[in-house]
Amino acid sequence: MNDADDLPLSPVSEPGEVGLVAPSDFVSKESFVCDSGQVLPGYTLRYETYGRLNAARDNAILICHALSGDHHCAGIHSLSDRKPGWWNNLIGPGKPVDTHRYFVLCANVIGGCQGSSGPASINPATGRAYGVSFPGVTIRDMVRAQHRWLQSLGVTALHAVIGGSMGGMQALQWAIEYPSFVRRVIAMATTARESAQGIAFNEVGRQAILQDPGWNGGDYPRNGGPRVGLAIARMMAHITYLSDAGLDRKFGRRRRAVATTPGTATVTAEPAANEAAGAAATEGAGTAPGFASFEFEIERYLRHQGQSFINRFDANSYLYITRAIDAFDVAGEGSLEQAFAPVQAESLIVGFTSDWLFPPEQNRDIALALLRAGKRASYAELNTDLGHDSFLLESPQLYDLVRGFLR
Amino acid sequence: MNDADDLPLSPVSEPGEVGLVAPSDFVSKESFVCDSGQVLPGYTLRYETYGRLNAARDNAILICHALSGDHHCAGIHSLSDRKPGWWNNLIGPGKPVDTHRYFVLCANVIGGCQGSSGPASINPATGRAYGVSFPGVTIRDMVRAQHRWLQSLGVTALHAVIGGSMGGMQALQWAIEYPSFVRRVIAMATTARESAQGIAFNEVGRQAILQDPGWNGGDYPRNGGPRVGLAIARMMAHITYLSDAGLDRKFGRRRRAVATTPGTATVTAEPAANEAAGAAATEGAGTAPGFASFEFEIERYLRHQGQSFINRFDANSYLYITRAIDAFDVAGEGSLEQAFAPVQAESLIVGFTSDWLFPPEQNRDIALALLRAGKRASYAELNTDLGHDSFLLESPQLYDLVRGFLR
Repeated sequence: MNDADDLPLSPVSEPGEVGLVAPSDFVSKESFVCDSGQVLPGYTLRYETYGRLNAARDNAILICHALSGDHHCAGIHSLSDRKPGWWNNLIGPGKPVDTHRYFVLCANVIGGCQGSSGPASINPATGRAYGVSFPGVTIRDMVRAQHRWLQSLGVTALHAVIGGSMGGMQALQWAIEYPSFVRRVIAMATTARESAQGIAFNEVGRQAILQDPGWNGGDYPRNGGPRVGLAIARMMAHITYLSDAGLDRKFGRRRRAVATTPGTATVTAEPAANEAAGAAATEGAGTAPGFASFEFEIERYLRHQGQSFINRFDANSYLYITRAIDAFDVAGEGSLEQAFAPVQAESLIVGFTSDWLFPPEQNRDIALALLRAGKRASYAELNTDLGHDSFLLESPQLYDLVRGFLR
Repeated sequence: MNDADDLPLSPVSEPGEVGLVAPSDFVSKESFVCDSGQVLPGYTLRYETYGRLNAARDNAILICHALSGDHHCAGIHSLSDRKPGWWNNLIGPGKPVDTHRYFVLCANVIGGCQGSSGPASINPATGRAYGVSFPGVTIRDMVRAQHRWLQSLGVTALHAVIGGSMGGMQALQWAIEYPSFVRRVIAMATTARESAQGIAFNEVGRQAILQDPGWNGGDYPRNGGPRVGLAIARMMAHITYLSDAGLDRKFGRRRRAVATTPGTATVTAEPAANEAAGAAATEGAGTAPGFASFEFEIERYLRHQGQSFINRFDANSYLYITRAIDAFDVAGEGSLEQAFAPVQAESLIVGFTSDWLFPPEQNRDIALALLRAGKRASYAELNTDLGHDSFLLESPQLYDLVRGFLR
C-alpha cells in the first residue's frame, strides 16, 4: 500500500472539513444492458470526489449511498449551505475516511433522481421523461454503472468500498462482481437478502405512491406527481430508520399546542406548502373534529419529514430503488458462501443493536458466510439505541473501527 | 367464589365449541359525557354473551377487543360461517375461558363500527351520520360505556376482565376505574402508555386516510369513503402485528408468477374488487413497467389484508380508535404505581418476546408497577416468534396460564 501521508492538503478544504465541493457528471454514450435485459442507450452518473488520486492509483475509496441518499456525501455546495453532505461526519481531512490520505468518490445511483439517469430523465428516443418505461434496475446494475464511471476516471482499483443500508448492499455486490478491483469492504446496517418484512414495508410505501391520483401511471410533471403518496411512504419508512427507545427519548408523549383544527394537519401536495395550509377544516371554523383534539410532537415531526422529502425526491425513483432493494439476494438459489466465493477483499461488517430494519443478525450472517467461504472478514456489533440510522450518526466507536480497518 | 362446575351446558353449544350465537344491542337513552367534555345523547353497544350468569352473579368475564376486533369473539353466526369469532380458540366449553363455568361477555367499543355507536352512527339531532362530529373517545370512555351496559344486565362484579393490545388497555382501565367491580385482570401484549413509535405508526395510517380524496372531511357514504387510504393504513398496521421471523417463515422471498402487469397490482376502492381489477395498465397491454417485473407473495398477502379490511371497517372509526390508543397513558402526569393505587384486582400480565408493537418490557413494566403499588400481580413472558398477534394464536402455554389464573 502506498503511503499517502505526504499527500498535500486539498486546496478546497478547511482544516477538518472537506469544504466547498461541486458535483460532476459522468456521461456514458455506450449502451448499458440492465439485469432485466432492457437496454439504456447510455446513462449519466452525477458524482463528487474529495481528496486526490495518488500516483499509484491505489488510494480510491468509493462511498455508496442508501435509498434516499445521493452523491453529495461530504462538504458543502455553497457557503450558505445549512447542511453538509450526508456522511460529512465520517469523511474529511483527518476524519475516519481521511481525505488527506484517500481519494473519495460517491455517485448518485442509476435509477436515482439527483442527477443520475433514472425515471425522471429524458428518454432521447421520445424527448420525454422515461417514467415507468425506464428499465428496472438492480443493485448489480448500480454497481456495474459505477464500474464504468470509475474506469473513466482512471481508477483501476479501490482501496475500499463503504456503504450502509442499500449502500452496504452495493459494497457487497462490488466485492463479488469485481473481485480484483476491491481491496476492502465496509458494509454497515445492511443485509445479504432483503427480508419479507423489508419487502412488506417497501410495498406499503409503493402502494401509497401508486394509489395517489397524481401518480398517473408514472407520467407527471417535475415537482408534481404523487407528492402526498410519496410523503406518506417517507413517513412510514422514516419510522423504520429509528427506534422505539430513540423516539421515546426524543419525543416521548409530548403534546403540542395548536391553534387550528389540531390533528388534522396533513402533508400537502404543494411544493412549498406550509403546514397550516394542510389543516383540513372539517367543521365550522375553529371546531376540531372529535378524533383530533390534540397533537403529539412525533406526529408533527413525521409530517415534516414527509413534506421535506417530496421537495427533493422523485416518486418513480422511489418505486425503482425500493424494488432494487427488494430484489437484492446475494445468495439467490445457492448459498451465501457460494455467492461470496469470488471475493478477494477483506471485509468489515458492522451491525447496530437497535437496527430493526436490518437487524444485527443479518449483518452477522454476512460476516459468518464470508468466513465460511474462507475470506478475511470481521464483524462488529455496536450498541446503540438509535435504530437503523445509527450508521449515519456520530459514533466514536464506529470512527475508530473505520479508521483502523482502512489503514 | 361460586362453584360453577354444576351449571348445565348452554343449549346452543356443541361439545368444545360455543356454537351458534347472535349479537344483541344495549341501548342507553341517558346522555353520556365523554372525557373530552362532549356529550352523546345516548349510545348503543352491540354485544354477545356465551354461557350463563350464575345465581351469585359472580361468574362474569368481560372480554375487551383490540383496534380491529369486535363483539364477536367466539362461536359462529350461521352454520355457513367460515370463521368463528376472533378469540374462539380461547373461549368455549372446556376451553381456558370455559363457558360451562363462566358467563362471557364482549361488546364492540364505543367509537367502533360493528354495531356500537361511532362516527358512522346516525346523529339523532341531524338524521345524518355523525362523521367527525362524533365526540372523541378514550379508552376510559370505552370502559365507562361498558360499565353502564353490564349494570343493565345485572352484572354487579366481574370474575375477570381479559384483553390483548387495546383490549389490555381497557382491562387495566377497568381495574382502575371500577376497583370493586373487577376481581381479576388479564392484560396481554399491551402497554400502560402508548409509545412515540406506536403513535407514529398510527399517524401514518391516519394520514393515508385523511389524504384520500374519498375521506371528504369525514363525510362519505357507507361502503364508500377513503377505502384506498384505509387499505394502506391496514397494510402498514398489519406488518406491525407480525414479526420479521414469522414473515420470513411464512413468505420468505417467494415470488409469484403473474399474468398481467405484475407489481402494479393495487388495492382498489371497489367494495367487491378482485385483485386483477386493481392492476394498473401503465403501458401497452402486457408490458410491465420497469420497476415491476416480479411480485413477492408477501406483497400479495398484504394487499389482500388491506382489501378485506375495507369491506368490514369504517375509516372514521379507524381515526377515532387509533386516537384513543395514542391518548392512552395510565400514569398521566404522575407515576404508574400512583395510577394503580385504587386497584383491587389480582393481575396477570402477559408479554410475548417477538411483539415489537407492545414489547415485553412494556408489559413487564405494568406488572412491576402493580407490585410496587402493593397489588397482587404476576408477569409471564411467552417465547414466540409470531409478533404482536401471538396473543390471538394457538398457544398451549397461554391457555394453561389463563385457565390456571381464572380458577
